[in-house]
Amino acid sequence: MSTSHERFMQAAIAMASVTHGQTAPNPAVGCVIVKDGRIVGMGAHFKAGEPHAEVMALKQAGDLAKGADVYVTLEPCAHFGKTPPCADTLVTHNVKRVFIATTDPNPLVAGKGIEILKRNNISVEVGVCEEEAQRINRDFFFRMANKRPWITLKSASTLDGKTATRTFDSKWITSTDSREDGHLLRHHHQAILVGLQTVIHDNPSLTCRLPGGGVHPIRFILDTQLNIPKNSTVLHDGVVDTIIVCGANASLEKEKELTKEQHVSIWRSKTERVELSWLVKEMAANNILSLLVEGGATVQSSFVKENLFDEFHHYLAPKLIGGQDSHNMIADLNVTMMKEAIELKVKEVKILGPDVKLILTRKD
Amino acid sequence: MSTSHERFMQAAIAMASVTHGQTAPNPAVGCVIVKDGRIVGMGAHFKAGEPHAEVMALKQAGDLAKGADVYVTLEPCAHFGKTPPCADTLVTHNVKRVFIATTDPNPLVAGKGIEILKRNNISVEVGVCEEEAQRINRDFFFRMANKRPWITLKSASTLDGKTATRTFDSKWITSTDSREDGHLLRHHHQAILVGLQTVIHDNPSLTCRLPGGGVHPIRFILDTQLNIPKNSTVLHDGVVDTIIVCGANASLEKEKELTKEQHVSIWRSKTERVELSWLVKEMAANNILSLLVEGGATVQSSFVKENLFDEFHHYLAPKLIGGQDSHNMIADLNVTMMKEAIELKVKEVKILGPDVKLILTRKD
Repeated sequence: MSTSHERFMQAAIAMASVTHGQTAPNPAVGCVIVKDGRIVGMGAHFKAGEPHAEVMALKQAGDLAKGADVYVTLEPCAHFGKTPPCADTLVTHNVKRVFIATTDPNPLVAGKGIEILKRNNISVEVGVCEEEAQRINRDFFFRMANKRPWITLKSASTLDGKTATRTFDSKWITSTDSREDGHLLRHHHQAILVGLQTVIHDNPSLTCRLPGGGVHPIRFILDTQLNIPKNSTVLHDGVVDTIIVCGANASLEKEKELTKEQHVSIWRSKTERVELSWLVKEMAANNILSLLVEGGATVQSSFVKENLFDEFHHYLAPKLIGGQDSHNMIADLNVTMMKEAIELKVKEVKILGPDVKLILTRKD
Repeated sequence: MSTSHERFMQAAIAMASVTHGQTAPNPAVGCVIVKDGRIVGMGAHFKAGEPHAEVMALKQAGDLAKGADVYVTLEPCAHFGKTPPCADTLVTHNVKRVFIATTDPNPLVAGKGIEILKRNNISVEVGVCEEEAQRINRDFFFRMANKRPWITLKSASTLDGKTATRTFDSKWITSTDSREDGHLLRHHHQAILVGLQTVIHDNPSLTCRLPGGGVHPIRFILDTQLNIPKNSTVLHDGVVDTIIVCGANASLEKEKELTKEQHVSIWRSKTERVELSWLVKEMAANNILSLLVEGGATVQSSFVKENLFDEFHHYLAPKLIGGQDSHNMIADLNVTMMKEAIELKVKEVKILGPDVKLILTRKD
């Protein structure tokens, strides 16, 4: 049983939910304005730099906003950014009550929007459908607390854990259903990362190719010596930024050559090898809230070994490749005894056409 | 919505179901006797050589059987075997009507029991809950049609398809829940098969160790040269038969030595290598209705390559072992390109404690 408050907040959450993936580095936010029991305005934040959810909803409500109830999934902002503070805008429109699902995770900002509202005699209630609202912006809340992006490892294998035959053939392990779900993951993550070997073997575009479209993630390539083949798609398609992460000693000449393309840039580590702990900190500092790691086996095992992941999305195709010289989904993890194996926790199991998808978390 | 006929037949099916695994090579059969809308007798066939379900139920019904309705999951037998024909027994007891879920799959027998009943003016209805009744005795129906046992391949691996670390440590990949489910599989199969390597590495007992007990499967060991280590548990525990399957050239001296134990026998192939197609035919001829293949990797891949399986039960533990020198669940399958991969079909996905179990079938 849900109250009307919950029903209206659910509508706001639905709007935040469908826009998740297109607002980075901002959170996805939904807003519903209610007058005399009827929704008179609804909106979401569509893109960083564009108006916030409250403003979009107020546009629809017009004069009806006066004396109305506002349901918003995140505390209205109190700072002048690219747009004026939403808390002030709500005050100007003379709304009566504001229901907020969750406060801002940034401790420097949290409560300030609420303060403005209350100071102007607007009644405020916090915590309606709080958990759900936090889940949608999981990455946004996470980065604030952890100083690194939310990291999802993605892999796809046959039932026997293989990602390619001995000849490196991998088209296709999984079904169209699974691959579409994989593109949805790309849409939902702000950045994607693969290792040099994946670029060499598959020459992927790493873009989001959902039927109906989606947002391309920023592409990161781990390439210590800047050995990426010159004809790689990610270097030339220009559809979204490509960031090549190299070690301290990588050739400056190669860097110059690569960055001739406007969408390509280089992140040079201070160490000879690229330390993942440095990289993810750097990402967070550059406003990257979520990272999808798509492999290959060595890159996956590096993230696993350093415990740098929050969820593991595994697509399992009901096929068998067999053999010792076919390719494994995870490279060496220094596991000699079973008790040293990395333990995960199954969070969700989904059927995707002929395939099975497992969503796992770390066990701790 | 189920009629009373279905409700009573469901009760009979429930009794067949719980005794599945203890009646081999006979089918599991349940029987319910109903008088004036009340169950007055119920029974199942408990063990080959012991009374059939109808007889057990009639014992409870006593004089009330006269004029009663009988619900039985399989057509009453018409032949003198270890017990007198059940069809005749039902006639003697003057029952009024007999409801039968499914006729006997043996074309030489099918309809004969029904004929006896009808000839004696007992009303007969066939097909109540037929599909379900056939499912319980799937192996019994299968052998009749296919001249080989129903074959289930069982495997357990980490998320990355590994069955042991590089040092052959595999205790334990899966949780207690999964291992118990595995023991239930042993109870439900009449025979179990592993290769010599599994005996060497794990020295398993291959018995059914369910809490509360279960029926041990007959143990088959594939061992072309009779190289099984002398101290292997299956050679000495004597709890159930062990059959070692060897090639034509295996040492006769070793055979003599091995078969000193009463529960150990040898099946000698006419070919140098043991052909699986021969072996399964031989099993069917020896009244073995169902076979559980528990590996290792080479044995599994042999059965897969020859398409000799009906279901694939895979226990997936949310763990990662990683690496190229850890052990794979399936040995070489001669798959070079993805399009040559063996395709299966996911039939069922179960959560077993922390693990996930997939039940797959062949794709064709």
